[in-house]
Amino acid sequence: MLKLYGFSVSNYYNVAKAALLEKGLAFEEVAAWTPLNDDFLRKSPMGKVPFLETDQGVFTEAQVILDYLEEVQPEPPLLPADPFQRAKVREISRVIELYMELPARRVYPAAFFGGQVSNETCDEARATLRKGAAALAALTGFDGYLSGDRFGQADATAVMHLPLLRDAGRKLLDVDVYETLPGVKDYLARMRERDSVKAVLADQKAGMEAFIKRKQG
Amino acid sequence: MLKLYGFSVSNYYNVAKAALLEKGLAFEEVAAWTPLNDDFLRKSPMGKVPFLETDQGVFTEAQVILDYLEEVQPEPPLLPADPFQRAKVREISRVIELYMELPARRVYPAAFFGGQVSNETCDEARATLRKGAAALAALTGFDGYLSGDRFGQADATAVMHLPLLRDAGRKLLDVDVYETLPGVKDYLARMRERDSVKAVLADQKAGMEAFIKRKQG
Repeated sequence: MLKLYGFSVSNYYNVAKAALLEKGLAFEEVAAWTPLNDDFLRKSPMGKVPFLETDQGVFTEAQVILDYLEEVQPEPPLLPADPFQRAKVREISRVIELYMELPARRVYPAAFFGGQVSNETCDEARATLRKGAAALAALTGFDGYLSGDRFGQADATAVMHLPLLRDAGRKLLDVDVYETLPGVKDYLARMRERDSVKAVLADQKAGMEAFIKRKQG
Repeated sequence: MLKLYGFSVSNYYNVAKAALLEKGLAFEEVAAWTPLNDDFLRKSPMGKVPFLETDQGVFTEAQVILDYLEEVQPEPPLLPADPFQRAKVREISRVIELYMELPARRVYPAAFFGGQVSNETCDEARATLRKGAAALAALTGFDGYLSGDRFGQADATAVMHLPLLRDAGRKLLDVDVYETLPGVKDYLARMRERDSVKAVLADQKAGMEAFIKRKQG
């Protein structure tokens, strides 16, 4: 059976988990806290979660897991059928990840766990986040789905990443990305009504207390 | 006809261009210098190159271009056929891009164009680059190809990114990633003998003088 490693508070773990649920695939969740122990580091040499173990071996990176799942279990599709439309969905996912989540992530320790962050890091994160939000607004609206005419990869990415990076942006960077993205609040509320997303977010909420204790450890 | 926008010195542009050449697809190269003008910004809202224009529209991001090309022109394949092996190739590409190229990129202005960079940025870039190189070494050797039993996506990514990020690492970060990657020099020499790579690197060399003038201009 597929094994998904990570923990239920990780937004990247949750992107992969939502996709597994959408596909209706049987999978086991294995708790792997960061920093990873040596056994887990052999499976995920960057020390990141999630990683997925299959009968053939293990690999890392949420987006790589999404692409793998799409290939081994095409139904229900989480990407459109048309190659150009697929590319547009992948582009949206990458903009959210590379130019919104990753810059905001640099201030998560300070935003959520009382850590320190330099002005230089804040300035860089703010500039990229603003640019990323504007790019996302240029690429898509939020009336329907971000992945074509049904829920898909970019929606799983958006619903797990946007609320978190928005919080960090508001707390430390004086940026509210939702102001740049008309309709995004209603969109996210709709996505949260999906069974897969609802289940993932319930587990995230349940895992938050244990996570915060570990972090404050 | 497909139009590839960017410039021949960009390593990301060159990844996409090598893939187009490998696929034997007809394409036109359109010069788009950064910072992009307003017309180009409508096609690439993050202001990055490369971007690809098709009959259906335009999209950005080198990896998204590779995935699109694989779907519209499966032969010759630049990914293995088996989904797990494909995931392992995608994982390698992402480690090179996210954890080696992107951190090293933060010091490119200082390494190559006389710009300034803070100690904080150098410290962060050095730590991620070292970790990324160790992760790459854990994921693959360099005896054959990085993309299975023939040249593919991860090889295009490696041959365009590794020499550049290695130079930046040596110049400013006191890191030589090749020391962490046994066999990588011979591997890169072999990749450079491929017709597609040879053509791309010849154009890169020819474009370098104009590029440096622009940068210094």
